[in-house]
Amino acid sequence: MSMALVILAAGQGTRMNSDLPKVLHPIGGAPMLVHAIRSGEVLEPARIVVVTGHGGEAVARAAVDYQPGVEIVVQEDRLGTAHAVAQAKGALAGFDGDVIVLYGDTPFIRPETLERMQAARAVHDVVVLGFEAADPGRYGRLVMAGETLERIVEFKDATDEERSITLCNSGVVAAKASVLFDLIDGVGNDNAAGEYYLTDIVGLARERGLSAGAVTCAEAETLGINSRAELAGAERLFQERMRAEALEDGVTLVAPETVFFAFDTVVGRDTVVEPNVVFGPGASVESEAQIRAFSHLEGCHVSRGAVVGPYARLRPGAELAEDVRVGNFVEIKASRVDRGAKINHLTYVGDAEVGEDANIGAGTVTCNYDGVMKHTTRIGARAFIGSSTMLVAPVSVGDDAMTGSGSVITQDVEPGALAIGRARQVTKPGLARKLFEMLKAQKQKKDQGAQ
Amino acid sequence: MSMALVILAAGQGTRMNSDLPKVLHPIGGAPMLVHAIRSGEVLEPARIVVVTGHGGEAVARAAVDYQPGVEIVVQEDRLGTAHAVAQAKGALAGFDGDVIVLYGDTPFIRPETLERMQAARAVHDVVVLGFEAADPGRYGRLVMAGETLERIVEFKDATDEERSITLCNSGVVAAKASVLFDLIDGVGNDNAAGEYYLTDIVGLARERGLSAGAVTCAEAETLGINSRAELAGAERLFQERMRAEALEDGVTLVAPETVFFAFDTVVGRDTVVEPNVVFGPGASVESEAQIRAFSHLEGCHVSRGAVVGPYARLRPGAELAEDVRVGNFVEIKASRVDRGAKINHLTYVGDAEVGEDANIGAGTVTCNYDGVMKHTTRIGARAFIGSSTMLVAPVSVGDDAMTGSGSVITQDVEPGALAIGRARQVTKPGLARKLFEMLKAQKQKKDQGAQ
Amino acid sequence: MSMALVILAAGQGTRMNSDLPKVLHPIGGAPMLVHAIRSGEVLEPARIVVVTGHGGEAVARAAVDYQPGVEIVVQEDRLGTAHAVAQAKGALAGFDGDVIVLYGDTPFIRPETLERMQAARAVHDVVVLGFEAADPGRYGRLVMAGETLERIVEFKDATDEERSITLCNSGVVAAKASVLFDLIDGVGNDNAAGEYYLTDIVGLARERGLSAGAVTCAEAETLGINSRAELAGAERLFQERMRAEALEDGVTLVAPETVFFAFDTVVGRDTVVEPNVVFGPGASVESEAQIRAFSHLEGCHVSRGAVVGPYARLRPGAELAEDVRVGNFVEIKASRVDRGAKINHLTYVGDAEVGEDANIGAGTVTCNYDGVMKHTTRIGARAFIGSSTMLVAPVSVGDDAMTGSGSVITQDVEPGALAIGRARQVTKPGLARKLFEMLKAQKQKKDQGAQ
Repeated sequence: MSMALVILAAGQGTRMNSDLPKVLHPIGGAPMLVHAIRSGEVLEPARIVVVTGHGGEAVARAAVDYQPGVEIVVQEDRLGTAHAVAQAKGALAGFDGDVIVLYGDTPFIRPETLERMQAARAVHDVVVLGFEAADPGRYGRLVMAGETLERIVEFKDATDEERSITLCNSGVVAAKASVLFDLIDGVGNDNAAGEYYLTDIVGLARERGLSAGAVTCAEAETLGINSRAELAGAERLFQERMRAEALEDGVTLVAPETVFFAFDTVVGRDTVVEPNVVFGPGASVESEAQIRAFSHLEGCHVSRGAVVGPYARLRPGAELAEDVRVGNFVEIKASRVDRGAKINHLTYVGDAEVGEDANIGAGTVTCNYDGVMKHTTRIGARAFIGSSTMLVAPVSVGDDAMTGSGSVITQDVEPGALAIGRARQVTKPGLARKLFEMLKAQKQKKDQGAQ
Repeated sequence: MSMALVILAAGQGTRMNSDLPKVLHPIGGAPMLVHAIRSGEVLEPARIVVVTGHGGEAVARAAVDYQPGVEIVVQEDRLGTAHAVAQAKGALAGFDGDVIVLYGDTPFIRPETLERMQAARAVHDVVVLGFEAADPGRYGRLVMAGETLERIVEFKDATDEERSITLCNSGVVAAKASVLFDLIDGVGNDNAAGEYYLTDIVGLARERGLSAGAVTCAEAETLGINSRAELAGAERLFQERMRAEALEDGVTLVAPETVFFAFDTVVGRDTVVEPNVVFGPGASVESEAQIRAFSHLEGCHVSRGAVVGPYARLRPGAELAEDVRVGNFVEIKASRVDRGAKINHLTYVGDAEVGEDANIGAGTVTCNYDGVMKHTTRIGARAFIGSSTMLVAPVSVGDDAMTGSGSVITQDVEPGALAIGRARQVTKPGLARKLFEMLKAQKQKKDQGAQ
Repeated sequence: MSMALVILAAGQGTRMNSDLPKVLHPIGGAPMLVHAIRSGEVLEPARIVVVTGHGGEAVARAAVDYQPGVEIVVQEDRLGTAHAVAQAKGALAGFDGDVIVLYGDTPFIRPETLERMQAARAVHDVVVLGFEAADPGRYGRLVMAGETLERIVEFKDATDEERSITLCNSGVVAAKASVLFDLIDGVGNDNAAGEYYLTDIVGLARERGLSAGAVTCAEAETLGINSRAELAGAERLFQERMRAEALEDGVTLVAPETVFFAFDTVVGRDTVVEPNVVFGPGASVESEAQIRAFSHLEGCHVSRGAVVGPYARLRPGAELAEDVRVGNFVEIKASRVDRGAKINHLTYVGDAEVGEDANIGAGTVTCNYDGVMKHTTRIGARAFIGSSTMLVAPVSVGDDAMTGSGSVITQDVEPGALAIGRARQVTKPGLARKLFEMLKAQKQKKDQGAQ
């Protein structure tokens, strides 16, 4: 059946103490809102509607950046969760599939859980996601009668007997669109907060003779985020999951607790990741590579057998072929590095192509920016770039060519040629000694003057 | 009322297994002695007396470095805590305010706790700081009768009933100076260790009809440090506090457990601190900045909206204005960088001024040291410094000026001018191939010779 | 008595999900097999026999790499632990000392534990290493009668009463060689798995009137490793031990949990190790040195009082004398650096000798590789190497000599001389402004063309 996601993302998140809307705070390098959308994507939704409010423009931009097909509706006044969902009614007019309501600040619902909710819809008109709470505290409780969910009771309205229930409400709900919006139309705001609660639809459904049921998941999936400490805790939980999966997949993490993954990081089997490695978004590493300590990778691809780091920074667009070596204090951006090439020390390679088995000396810079535009550097196969060569782009160095160390290369170098641009060394006997004496004398004079 | 702090800092700390006096081992980048002084500073003490002994000169230097007004007295023989406090008697002769006795190896007493002790002095002649111990073990016990502290009993002298008391002695004591020193005069050393115990003043006070009371604090505040493992534990506790405060203040710490603060670090709201960042002493960061992974900041200031790192090192005197960008493998020391300037890669900037929106190319060095003295480099607004430019200080590059990559700049460059200093590129066709062949032949010969 | 180690290292380790044989996965930078061998070395074994199987060649290479005297035997079919030990019978023919059987995937047995087993052999013919299990689960149980070990019973064969025993079997066994192999000859494979179990020798020994006994150790020592998660756990345990030992030895670890040691790291008293430091194999640091944050050391030596980092990488063969300073973004390899020399920023020093009190400017590179061979650079005492000097090896700079910044040094520089090789600076008034305008116009044109 056709599916729509409605994702509530209007909350302000006062306790975050931030100008950034709460749902845009990132976990694993992606806004928590994106995590919520990604959970729902397993259902191949035909429609995704994000309900924005506080910081709405930024939230809308982030949602559309991630998935251009997302539709945005705005909740001008924030009158409760039922009111928030109601804002999507217009956008989904005529849509006759199912709706699942998710929350932009609840990023950990597993795709499999949503699949189970979808399956449960075959049995019940309304399906609610619950969880067995270790400490139910002030959560709403799911009042079950056998397989039937009778109603959801808020903690403050619950009897002592109801408070002893440990099956709690996550807020995630699935129903046919027409049913959902009909029920919401019936929700009132006759309560202490004067808000329209989505939870009330369960009782309404039962009154109308519809069936309701619950699907349960682990409490950790329903974790909501309301403060930066909780955000940090959520990040930790996310990282623990990613690390456990990597180990399971046959990756060696020498010190798992020091490796930070992004939401989309891919690392292949028998790749070794040393301590203190950070993956930003968009990094993939094939098998049998080594990512050495203190490396930072984002938006890049590392092929089988490559060795990266320590202290290597691969930025977006860095593509390393097999058996490439990138060493310490090296930055690579928007560049393809072919098989077996070596860039071992203190180098900046940007907007470049580096050929097979090329060797780039320490201190080399591709001077890709002229102050206004970026230009490309091409380095041929087996080329030998001497230390501290400045490659002033656009420029190319041919296959098997060589540059002298300390040269500034402004013109193309043909294959097999040697290019050199440096002044002749002049040595002046005894001059260093004289200079030192002079400088020391100056200093002494100056120091005396300062007294 | 006027206050004096007496801080006992004479202990050797044998279990530290160190030549450094125990109270000089740092926590959060400051000697633990400084933490103790800082706790007491909330009381705006008129006098601070530090009692030194083991490694006294170094201890005195550290105390005076932190707070020049500190007075030092030396405990030649170490005959117990009462004897240590007695050394301050001469220094405080004529002082008629209150004295609080603190300990150089007990760095975590909260200022608010000392304020409560000060307040309690309105009620009692002698006020002792106690704590409810989770495991009282061999701590001295506070024997209370209602609100009155009757005496402090050492564990080894305690009856079974007294041993069941869980309110323990921290050693911190407050009393009027004249009362304190009078009581101390009455303390004897008729005990197993032959030492004069400060704790005995409570019993003496009661005998003399003075009142004594207790103020309690969390056990963690009274944590004393006797080994490097305890020091590491204290550092961990300190870092956890700092991290929790930063989160509370609206700072995003992606992985709080990997961020290390100094005792005086300031970070503004909505600043994002990525994993693996180390703050040394004296670093302040305004709001909405980004401190990226693997950065190291000390003695520096980062303004709103600036982006630092990854792998940036800001050393003392680095002052970054708003929206400055400092990228990877960049070191900045004693330099002012104006709004919007970019120093993105592999650069050393020391003793420099960098103008607004200037762009510093990769591999640039301000050659600030001539082997004897340091000199200043000035870079104008919107100047474009080509990659691997050597700026031989003292030198200045004017506004809107440009330097060619690979140039050594020894003379001032006027605004809008282009300065360049490099040899012309010469390309020798086929020479690289010949050189490689020659080198390989040499190597082969050498390898054969080695057999 | 003469000793032989038999180390079983034939297992495949399917759950590791790796092409690397299980026993070659490293802990603290050494294959776990090497840890097992090292444990046994305290007994000064006359013979070490490693039984290989899966990935046998690689395992054999690693064992012999570590200890050339190791003998390798191959277990072609893997028919159980008794069968594995039996493969060593030929190699040990005629050996009349004791044999201790160890396991390549059990790296944490303490040397002292093996010494206790050796001592227990004075009392018993067969000695088994047991441990009190917190959760005995499916371990084999040691059935004791007083001081006598009656037999080892597998969990699945155990009675309820036997299952209540908490003293479990580690698999480590000691016996005289002739006795051991005789007993093994008697072991059958009449069990569910059809395997020959080493544990059966205890029952056989008792049947034959020999005495058997048990030595117990901490459960953590017997930790076996079967998955990457367990490997990561073992690494953590190893690191915790190393950190605790370092603290005990008087090393300051500011944040112990962020310092990673190799199996053979040595750090001296009163040396301070800041957060985020990684030691690879072969690093030693004397006392009173500082290893600052984000440093990476392997195969190197750091002398008393030297300061390394932050962000320093010392590679194999880096030898720093007393009071040397190596700063940020500096890589040193196969080089001796004499007392008091400073290499503070952005430098590569490889295959070099650096004299006393020499000062190496930022951006300096020893160009040690010509594309085919490595060559040596010699820098004299008190030499001052200007920033971004390229030292094209083989080359030497004499004592008290100086190089101009940005120079390429291809010829030796005599003591006290100044060597310089750079083009004269040319400054063209107004040209930067014109260039910027031209580039902007080009860009505008290009952008319009792109529309």
